[in-house]
Amino acid sequence: MTVEHIYDLAIVGCGPAGLSAAINAKIRKLDFVIFGSEFCSPKLHQSPIVDNYLGFFNIRGEDLRQHFLNHVRDMGIVITHNKITNIFPDGDCYVLLGKDTTVYKARAVILATGVAYGKQLPGEDKFVGRGVSYCGTCDGPLYKGREIAVVGYTKEAEEEVEYLSTVAGKVHYFVQYDRKGSSLPDNVVISTAKVIAIEGDQQVQSVITGEGPVKVDAVFIFRDAAPAGQMVLGLETRDGVVIVDRNLQTNLPGVFAAGDITGKPWQLAKAVGEGSTAALNAASYIRAVKKGQVEPAAVW
Amino acid sequence: MTVEHIYDLAIVGCGPAGLSAAINAKIRKLDFVIFGSEFCSPKLHQSPIVDNYLGFFNIRGEDLRQHFLNHVRDMGIVITHNKITNIFPDGDCYVLLGKDTTVYKARAVILATGVAYGKQLPGEDKFVGRGVSYCGTCDGPLYKGREIAVVGYTKEAEEEVEYLSTVAGKVHYFVQYDRKGSSLPDNVVISTAKVIAIEGDQQVQSVITGEGPVKVDAVFIFRDAAPAGQMVLGLETRDGVVIVDRNLQTNLPGVFAAGDITGKPWQLAKAVGEGSTAALNAASYIRAVKKGQVEPAAVW
Repeated sequence: MTVEHIYDLAIVGCGPAGLSAAINAKIRKLDFVIFGSEFCSPKLHQSPIVDNYLGFFNIRGEDLRQHFLNHVRDMGIVITHNKITNIFPDGDCYVLLGKDTTVYKARAVILATGVAYGKQLPGEDKFVGRGVSYCGTCDGPLYKGREIAVVGYTKEAEEEVEYLSTVAGKVHYFVQYDRKGSSLPDNVVISTAKVIAIEGDQQVQSVITGEGPVKVDAVFIFRDAAPAGQMVLGLETRDGVVIVDRNLQTNLPGVFAAGDITGKPWQLAKAVGEGSTAALNAASYIRAVKKGQVEPAAVW
Repeated sequence: MTVEHIYDLAIVGCGPAGLSAAINAKIRKLDFVIFGSEFCSPKLHQSPIVDNYLGFFNIRGEDLRQHFLNHVRDMGIVITHNKITNIFPDGDCYVLLGKDTTVYKARAVILATGVAYGKQLPGEDKFVGRGVSYCGTCDGPLYKGREIAVVGYTKEAEEEVEYLSTVAGKVHYFVQYDRKGSSLPDNVVISTAKVIAIEGDQQVQSVITGEGPVKVDAVFIFRDAAPAGQMVLGLETRDGVVIVDRNLQTNLPGVFAAGDITGKPWQLAKAVGEGSTAALNAASYIRAVKKGQVEPAAVW
C-alpha cells in the first residue's frame, strides 16, 4: 500500500451536501478530493418539482441537479468516481479505501453519503418520480384533490399523513407498524393490510395489498433509514443517524458529516447548508492541525 | 390590547433564513406571518459576488437577492413591514409587539434577525465611546452644535438622523443602502459615498469615504439587527448568539432560531438550511401542541 499524497480533506458523497462542501473547500483553497458515484444525487433527479430551495421556485429536480453540477464544474472541481468502502485513522490522518482498491489519505473527512432506505417494495424503484415519493412536503402539492396512498413503517409517517390529507382528496394510510392511534383527518382511510407491491403503467396506478389492490395516483413511503456511517470505524451513530454537534463534527476528530446522514429533516436546503458549514469547520480544523494547535486523528 | 387572531407561526426577519422558513411554512400550510424591514437582506444586496450558494455560481449579491424575493412572492407570501421590538409568552402562545404598537400572537416563533455586529469598519472598535456610538438618544446630546456623521445601513437610521439633526449643528448622513428619499432637515448633508474607515487621534476626527475624508467629531452607526435575541424575554444566549439544539429549538418551547443569529459560520447556505429546518420543526411543534401532546409556551 503506497500512498504518495495526503489530501487536506476528503469529501465522501456527491449529493447536495457533498457538492456544497466541495465549493466551499475550493473557495477555502483546500487540497481536497470529492468521491461520488457516476450519477450524483439520483433522489434529486427523481423529484418532479422542487419548491423549497430558496432561489429556485417550481423547478424540476433534474434541472436543479444540473445547476448544482454546473456550479461545481464551473469552479473546476472534478468528482472522483470511486465508492469508498472503509475509513479508518492511521498516523496523523485518515485512510480511505476505494472499491477499486485504491487507497487515499486525508487529514479530514466529510461524510455526505445520504441515507440508505430499507428493503424496497416490488415496483417501488421503477415508479420513483412517477408517483412514488419519499417526501410529502416536496411532492404532496402535485396531487391536489387526488387519491393517494401512504405506506408508513414508523409512527413518524403520521405527521406526513396529516399534511398530505390537507392536499390530497383522499389518503389511504397503510399502517405497517403497531399503531396506537390518535385520530386522523376524515379523508384518511386507515388500513393495516400488508403492502406487497406497487403497480402501474407509465405512472403509479395501484398499491397491491394482502387484502387486494387499491387504486391511487401516488404512493408516499416513509421508512426508518438504514444505518449511516457504517463505513467508518468507531463512528458514533444513533437510530441510524451519525451524531454531530452544531459544528457538524462527529465524535472522531477531523471527521465531519453533512446532509441526510445527520438526520431529519431530509431536505435539500439543510444538506446544502450543512455541507457549507462542515467544509468551513473542516478548514479551521485542518489549519489548526497544521499549526500544531490541535491533536490530529491519530491521537483519538 | 385586543388581538383577534392567533397565528400558528411568526417568522421575525426577512433575510435568507426568514425567507427560507417562510417558503417551508407556506408549503406546510401553516397560518403564519413574516415580519421584515422595508429592505430585506441589505447584506446580500451589498455582496458584489456570491460563489458559495450551491446552484448559483458567480452571481451578484443583488441578483441572488432578487431570486430569493421572487421565489417568496411567486408563492404568494407577503412580508409584513413592521419591526418586532418585544416577544414574550402569554397564555398558550407568544405575544409580539410591533414598533408601530401593533400586537400579534403566535403559537410558535422563528427568530431570524441576523447579527448586529457583522463586519465592523476599520477604526470603529478603537473609537467606540470616543466618538463612535450606536445610540442617538444616549450620546447625541454630547455633540450639541457640533458636526457629526451618521452611517446608516438601513432605512431605520433616518429616524436617528432626524433626531440627531435637532441636537448637532450639522449632520453628514452617509447612506449605505438604496435610499428612496423623503426629505431630511436642512442641516443634514446626504452623501451616498461608501464609508471605508474611521480615523482620529484620541477621539474621532474624520470619516474616510470613497470620495475622500470628512472631518467630524462623532460617528453614529446604525446597522440592521440588534444584538441577538435581546427582544425575547428569557431567551438563552452566549457570546451574542442564540443557543439552539440540532433542531434549531431554543430554550423556550416553540421558539426556534435560524441563520446568523445562531452563530458562525455567517453563511448564506447555512441560513437557508436552518430556515428550512426551523420551519419544519416548528410545524411539528405546532401540530403536537394542537393535539395536546406537548405543553405549549405558557407552561415554560
